[in-house]
Amino acid sequence: MSDDTVKIFDTTLRDGEQSPGCSMTTAEKMKVAKELVKLGVDIIEAGFPIASPGDFEAVRKIANEFGSQTTICGLARCRKDDIDRAWEALKDAEKSRIHVFLATSSIHREHKLKMNKEQIVETAVEMVKRARDYCPDIEFSPEDAARTEKDFLCEVVEKAIDAGATTVNIPDTVGYATPAHFHDVITTLKKNVPNIDRAVISTHCHNDLGLAVANSLAAVEAGARQIECTINGLGERAGNCALEEVVMALKTRADYYGVHTNINTKRLYPISHLVSTVTGMTVQRNKAIVGKNAFAHEAGIHQHGILQERTTYEIMHPDDVGYVGSNLVLGKHSGRHAFRDRIQSLGHTLDDETFERIFKEFIVLADKKKEIYDSDIVALIENQVTDAPEKWKIARFHTSAGTGTIATATIELADENGKIHCDAATGDGPVDAVFRALERISGITAVLEQYHVGSVSSGKDAQGEVRVEVRINGELFTGRSVSTDIIESSAKAYLQAINKAAAKLEN
Amino acid sequence: MSDDTVKIFDTTLRDGEQSPGCSMTTAEKMKVAKELVKLGVDIIEAGFPIASPGDFEAVRKIANEFGSQTTICGLARCRKDDIDRAWEALKDAEKSRIHVFLATSSIHREHKLKMNKEQIVETAVEMVKRARDYCPDIEFSPEDAARTEKDFLCEVVEKAIDAGATTVNIPDTVGYATPAHFHDVITTLKKNVPNIDRAVISTHCHNDLGLAVANSLAAVEAGARQIECTINGLGERAGNCALEEVVMALKTRADYYGVHTNINTKRLYPISHLVSTVTGMTVQRNKAIVGKNAFAHEAGIHQHGILQERTTYEIMHPDDVGYVGSNLVLGKHSGRHAFRDRIQSLGHTLDDETFERIFKEFIVLADKKKEIYDSDIVALIENQVTDAPEKWKIARFHTSAGTGTIATATIELADENGKIHCDAATGDGPVDAVFRALERISGITAVLEQYHVGSVSSGKDAQGEVRVEVRINGELFTGRSVSTDIIESSAKAYLQAINKAAAKLEN
Repeated sequence: MSDDTVKIFDTTLRDGEQSPGCSMTTAEKMKVAKELVKLGVDIIEAGFPIASPGDFEAVRKIANEFGSQTTICGLARCRKDDIDRAWEALKDAEKSRIHVFLATSSIHREHKLKMNKEQIVETAVEMVKRARDYCPDIEFSPEDAARTEKDFLCEVVEKAIDAGATTVNIPDTVGYATPAHFHDVITTLKKNVPNIDRAVISTHCHNDLGLAVANSLAAVEAGARQIECTINGLGERAGNCALEEVVMALKTRADYYGVHTNINTKRLYPISHLVSTVTGMTVQRNKAIVGKNAFAHEAGIHQHGILQERTTYEIMHPDDVGYVGSNLVLGKHSGRHAFRDRIQSLGHTLDDETFERIFKEFIVLADKKKEIYDSDIVALIENQVTDAPEKWKIARFHTSAGTGTIATATIELADENGKIHCDAATGDGPVDAVFRALERISGITAVLEQYHVGSVSSGKDAQGEVRVEVRINGELFTGRSVSTDIIESSAKAYLQAINKAAAKLEN
Repeated sequence: MSDDTVKIFDTTLRDGEQSPGCSMTTAEKMKVAKELVKLGVDIIEAGFPIASPGDFEAVRKIANEFGSQTTICGLARCRKDDIDRAWEALKDAEKSRIHVFLATSSIHREHKLKMNKEQIVETAVEMVKRARDYCPDIEFSPEDAARTEKDFLCEVVEKAIDAGATTVNIPDTVGYATPAHFHDVITTLKKNVPNIDRAVISTHCHNDLGLAVANSLAAVEAGARQIECTINGLGERAGNCALEEVVMALKTRADYYGVHTNINTKRLYPISHLVSTVTGMTVQRNKAIVGKNAFAHEAGIHQHGILQERTTYEIMHPDDVGYVGSNLVLGKHSGRHAFRDRIQSLGHTLDDETFERIFKEFIVLADKKKEIYDSDIVALIENQVTDAPEKWKIARFHTSAGTGTIATATIELADENGKIHCDAATGDGPVDAVFRALERISGITAVLEQYHVGSVSSGKDAQGEVRVEVRINGELFTGRSVSTDIIESSAKAYLQAINKAAAKLEN
């Protein structure tokens, strides 16, 4: 790696997935990993293998499937079991990394770990060595580094490198650093750690004060050559450094930073959309780079300027980040060929069977909706993302509601043997009635935690995307569906969550 | 003002309102202005008076109502008419400011203004003087300052101060600056502009690369003592510096920055929620400070740490920003007194009439919903926010929908004289059918641009908040409503937008 390349380490599947409401199934993680490979990230942190059997399985599958294309990383605390389990998940990958962490700040040493400095150094060294016995690519993170005494941080980092760490990652775990302060931390390490040239310096910044991107860039200015980040800035609390922002800052201000990344920036918008769809974490309209307004100009004075010369108010072009606008593209008479072309230009490759299924749905949609937008097509494709098990399918349903009447839903569900089960229920409005009827037939009681509808395109017959998050037996399940009728998509989304729970209960 | 106080200049009502989808009615602007006063901002930029009669009226009303409590500012280009019009709107306020701007970068000089350097300086001086003849508090902004040649920027700033500018605002109009670069710009001004001590240096940073907050903080480090910002970071494209983030960074890292603001941080969450409600611009869950996850801890390891000692993973306390959680507070047997207490502790003061109306709605809601959360109460209060004119009211409605049937809505609307108009329509699903029936009765055709439903609280009987954005005669109108039945709230939200359009058409 030349010294002007900054490695991009994506932790959407680990730190991102760990945040409330963001849990993903293994199938969803595989889909995101595939897009991360296309995006060109250097390292994918695929999970925390010892955390759960599901996490282990996801890391193992991602390592096996994508470990020849990019480096797959698994997280481990400084414990033997963690490291052994991480290696177990990674061992079949061509390129793998074990990421070992241990907190070093006084507040974490005293209150969480109850260990003194000597014990911290000893444990870190022992565990880095153990990991290194398995794998040549080892990352060590002194957790809460930004609040760690600088001399102790230098000592830990030096010993970790001596023990075999090839990357030392400096986390601002609680999002407390400022750019100048963080620059100083990295500079201190460069100056005072004698063996620092034997490792890549990395950053992992949280966004509690809105400074994660700026702190990561300050670290790069001071000599860091790896940035840990997530798509849409997902992650614990206010999240991590947003991959799309830090990458576009380095690219747009290459004149200033003098470094580059291996990211194919045209894949930024598609992967942002995918991750938002899979996790249900909506990207706000005024979010930098991937928000809906990021490239929109409302003020007359700006529009005037843009018409004269784009650069008056635009430092990036929407195409640079693969922005899918609301271009009017297809109608009901568009053929298979035009449809396939459009799908490809949106960056999706589909196998023949999936293509045929989506084409059929496209024809049905085009019958209802005169104008099909790019965003409608993306929605059709992403409807296929969740390979959720389907114990129950909706055969027919009917709702009746209004003022002065009691909202009622009648539903027929087909079970896996095709047998029809029919029942009715009342509720506060037809959506609630539908949910109650689905519960009655499936015998599964769910508590609705989140309910969200957004339009995926504009126009009088816009499709509504419904996302639900329900708690069943204390566990959260998500469901999602798109349709022009939001009662129908609500029913399908809710049933998807129920089906996921049913599959889990049967296993 | 002491030198360690940083003034907070809020431009939510000007730059924020100018972004796509954020337009507010005068009544909505008044409500936001009232909360900005309670928040303690030093200056409210209330609008751009010459832009439209509506903008003028809003600035005038805000100046008259709040001009004794905080400084009210109006924007003006370097044109006589702009300045005269701004003063006309501001003149009755006790404390007012005219904000004059002119672009100075070569790209704007050549492509937009077609003026040379001499003409820029001459125009700026002439117009600052004209404004100063009206008002002692004058702010001058060299637009696109971050891309302006430094020697020319120094020249313009010096001349503007000589002409009477008391604040010089340095905008990064296109969000191109980096923290170190922006620090350097402010340092250069401090060093090379001989009369710089006669003015307050201000910043106005855009967030295109995710660096607006960091750039503003870098400016403060270099000596700036005013920050222009917006609630939730609203504004053109990716928006402006987020007020809540920059204020909490200065407060949390007071040890580092050594300055303070006059902001009452406990009002940050309530005003964020209000602005999101009024504009329909959703705040993403992983947004710093005011996002739903900002104070949530999911990972077991973090929860363990938090239980041992809060500061292991928390640098701010939710109470510091007035976070309204999902506390279970009231049930149907809670009385008037408990309800009024709760409203006050949520930071709302209501006149008796409004209180009685909301209490009545609370009782109806408590009948449907066993558990009333803080967020439900906020929703009830905010349902009252839009003082939209009401030509039409819903008397009764009924919908019938499902597979194999054609979705149909039957609606009775009462006009302003109480006369009932009844009609029915079909649609793609019951919501669409309701919209069609409303259009049919009101005679107004609308194109749905955005449709959004979110749950305002959790639980099986969560209330749904519907927000619509519709285009009528080429103009955008928004509507919003909350109910446990989303068909009902969809109907009310759509009708609110239609009523706004009807009022406009009649004027």
